Amino acid sequence: MAQITKPSIPKGTRDFSPLQMARRNYIFDTIKSVFRLYGFQQIETPAMENLSTLMGKYGEEGDKLLFKILNSGDWKGAIDAEALQNESIGKLTTKVSEKGLRYDLTVPFARFVTQYRNEISFPFKRFQIQPVWRADRPQKGRYREFYQCDVDVVGTDSLVSELELIQIVEEVYKRLGINVCLKLNNRKILSGIAEVIGEADKIVDITVAIDKLDKIGLDNVNKELLEKGLPEEAVEKLQPIMALAGTNREKLQTLREVLASSETGLKGVEETETILNLCDAAGVRLNVELDLTLARGLNYYTGAIFEVKALDVQMGSITGGGRYDNLTGIFGMPGVSGVGISFGADRIYDVLTELNLYPADVLVGTQLLFVSFGQAELAYSIAWAKQLREAGLRVEVFPEPAKMKKQMGYADQKQIPYVAIVGGDEMAADKVMLKNMLTGEQKLVSADELKQALL
Amino acid sequence: MAQITKPSIPKGTRDFSPLQMARRNYIFDTIKSVFRLYGFQQIETPAMENLSTLMGKYGEEGDKLLFKILNSGDWKGAIDAEALQNESIGKLTTKVSEKGLRYDLTVPFARFVTQYRNEISFPFKRFQIQPVWRADRPQKGRYREFYQCDVDVVGTDSLVSELELIQIVEEVYKRLGINVCLKLNNRKILSGIAEVIGEADKIVDITVAIDKLDKIGLDNVNKELLEKGLPEEAVEKLQPIMALAGTNREKLQTLREVLASSETGLKGVEETETILNLCDAAGVRLNVELDLTLARGLNYYTGAIFEVKALDVQMGSITGGGRYDNLTGIFGMPGVSGVGISFGADRIYDVLTELNLYPADVLVGTQLLFVSFGQAELAYSIAWAKQLREAGLRVEVFPEPAKMKKQMGYADQKQIPYVAIVGGDEMAADKVMLKNMLTGEQKLVSADELKQALL
Repeated sequence: MAQITKPSIPKGTRDFSPLQMARRNYIFDTIKSVFRLYGFQQIETPAMENLSTLMGKYGEEGDKLLFKILNSGDWKGAIDAEALQNESIGKLTTKVSEKGLRYDLTVPFARFVTQYRNEISFPFKRFQIQPVWRADRPQKGRYREFYQCDVDVVGTDSLVSELELIQIVEEVYKRLGINVCLKLNNRKILSGIAEVIGEADKIVDITVAIDKLDKIGLDNVNKELLEKGLPEEAVEKLQPIMALAGTNREKLQTLREVLASSETGLKGVEETETILNLCDAAGVRLNVELDLTLARGLNYYTGAIFEVKALDVQMGSITGGGRYDNLTGIFGMPGVSGVGISFGADRIYDVLTELNLYPADVLVGTQLLFVSFGQAELAYSIAWAKQLREAGLRVEVFPEPAKMKKQMGYADQKQIPYVAIVGGDEMAADKVMLKNMLTGEQKLVSADELKQALL
Repeated sequence: MAQITKPSIPKGTRDFSPLQMARRNYIFDTIKSVFRLYGFQQIETPAMENLSTLMGKYGEEGDKLLFKILNSGDWKGAIDAEALQNESIGKLTTKVSEKGLRYDLTVPFARFVTQYRNEISFPFKRFQIQPVWRADRPQKGRYREFYQCDVDVVGTDSLVSELELIQIVEEVYKRLGINVCLKLNNRKILSGIAEVIGEADKIVDITVAIDKLDKIGLDNVNKELLEKGLPEEAVEKLQPIMALAGTNREKLQTLREVLASSETGLKGVEETETILNLCDAAGVRLNVELDLTLARGLNYYTGAIFEVKALDVQMGSITGGGRYDNLTGIFGMPGVSGVGISFGADRIYDVLTELNLYPADVLVGTQLLFVSFGQAELAYSIAWAKQLREAGLRVEVFPEPAKMKKQMGYADQKQIPYVAIVGGDEMAADKVMLKNMLTGEQKLVSADELKQALL
């Protein structure tokens, strides 16, 4: 017999209780039903991918954060003492492991699109909701296993896809009751800025600096840029962008002037304007704000960049994404443009919890518990329960004629709103004593009356 | 840049297309809604468990079939040349790996119950639907990643729980439209048989032999038992059991006589009779058949054993389970009795496919596609689509004014039943040309007429 193990789970992972599951399902179901309104369809991919699919896709740091599966069988046969001594950990790892756990949903999606290119009708609109795993150091709000919830359109460069993602953001957060604003940027505008000031390699420094404007003021931002090695002339040219203000249209007008000499930059301005026009045409009421400091996925996105923030809580981005022009190139299928966003389920969960926005009936729990005190009463309860379930009610029968206190305690703990008490008198009258657990009210009811009370 | 990788997935794993996902979701949703009628609540546990939780729970063979996660960071630091040379693969593995992938849902559930024993109200009725992983050799119908769908009650030894699982089986397969029979056995009856013939260690041989009765006949079965080392006297005593026939009640009567000297055996007969009585009281119409050859999980189950077979196809068991008396003992929480069953999603999928039993609308797909030929038409389509989605319709707008053929081809491939064609005339009339893709019929309709046609 194996020895006794104290029960625990790996750090950075979580169990989900029935209440947590109900809340998570509420979030996923809301999001899914909006995705479906726009014709997106669900796929799933395996938890394990070949390491050849995963490695090199997330940078050097990402490769280290992949969870790798030890080869089955005699893995030690693949290494010898010499290899153990002389080879790098990376090299050795490829000898004992050929599979890894999914790190995100993007690379598996790119693999999927390439693998099934001949069966897919493009534009391909898919969503995918599955866990991913990262060997990150766990900390508050950061887990080693967490769900991603991705929605993408690939195979078209039409900006109608950007519009639809914005509409989806609007509808999802309307349904969840969370006030949000959507920040919009465009990689081409950022490239244009770097181009006109002649500092293409300084995009990141520039956006980081602009981001600090509110906190440290214009003078300090300029100082920082100079310290980072930007020539004075370039900092000078940046001033209209630092001062960028007004409505989205006013900002675009300023940018059009500043970026007059950059074809790429003007393309970015034009794309952004088209997206805003489409939003107007579609009656989007969501607060969409052009924000040049938004620079997520800078080495990845090629067009629009999105980020969604909740307005009434302190929380990072709860949704984000953008357009990429070469998703599947790495798998040998070039020229496929796509745009997608990812909903951060864990953060949305926290926002809903903090703002107390879950529907009261989020936990689809038991509606009625039968409490009985003998075998005959138990059989009577079972027959009633069958009838009620046929009417669609969620009903439990306490499985043993235990003490009243124990059975009522069970109803309390499970927050069951009604209890049907069955004794000899009730059986004789072909009724049950229905107790409302919230008010304490009791009354003798027939089966029909019971259904009426609960349905 | 990394080199191009030919896209593929690890053997024994699967991608799921939108249609496959829709079918799987249909199965899971059906099962879940029945679970909820009986007050079962969903939990989830992490994909990775500590190896200390998993090892030793599935036998020596099971330990080998666990997928193990290579420790992050410098795993090679934990082994040296000497260890590599002298230590067993099992010992070495524990040095470089401390986590493994979930092998089933039972052990994580036992771990969960023990870990949260103070927060759970017993009897605890939970269900869990998650993938599990096994490093088995892949073959037809056997995967390295597959979903399990488990439902269990723990913390009561009341046979009402067995009844409820039988009721759940009945209702699930009624809803799915699959004709099934449920085979019922009891570990205590099998133990009783072995006891009265004085051959406690031969239970497995005996049940295997009985199982062959139909195929090879009584004489050959008796011969086989003698060859396996059963004394003639024992084989003689087994004859009434070999000849067991008639209704469930008749079989129980015979068993009661044969097992008269075995307390355990009689207990098993009594439990089975109670379960059958409860089924009668609850109006169960499912075909429940007492079958002594049913011996699954023999070293695990302690009471009732269940197995469900589809009647109209050749397929192994599609659901099975039983009662266990010491689920959580291994984690230091003794004396917790439970009973559970597991629905085999992959086999149910195959049965439904073979019998063509999926609802026609299983794929919740797009209902209407807007087809347009210019930017103005596209904007017009977007505005209409918004309105229709607000009415709950699942609507797509082809994102570019592409050629008619391309747009119609997209509708065809995605099996979208209606297309709304938008040109200058339609815009001028504030209408669209609605085409039924099945019949080819076309008519000019207003927004209200369109809603009426589709809702």
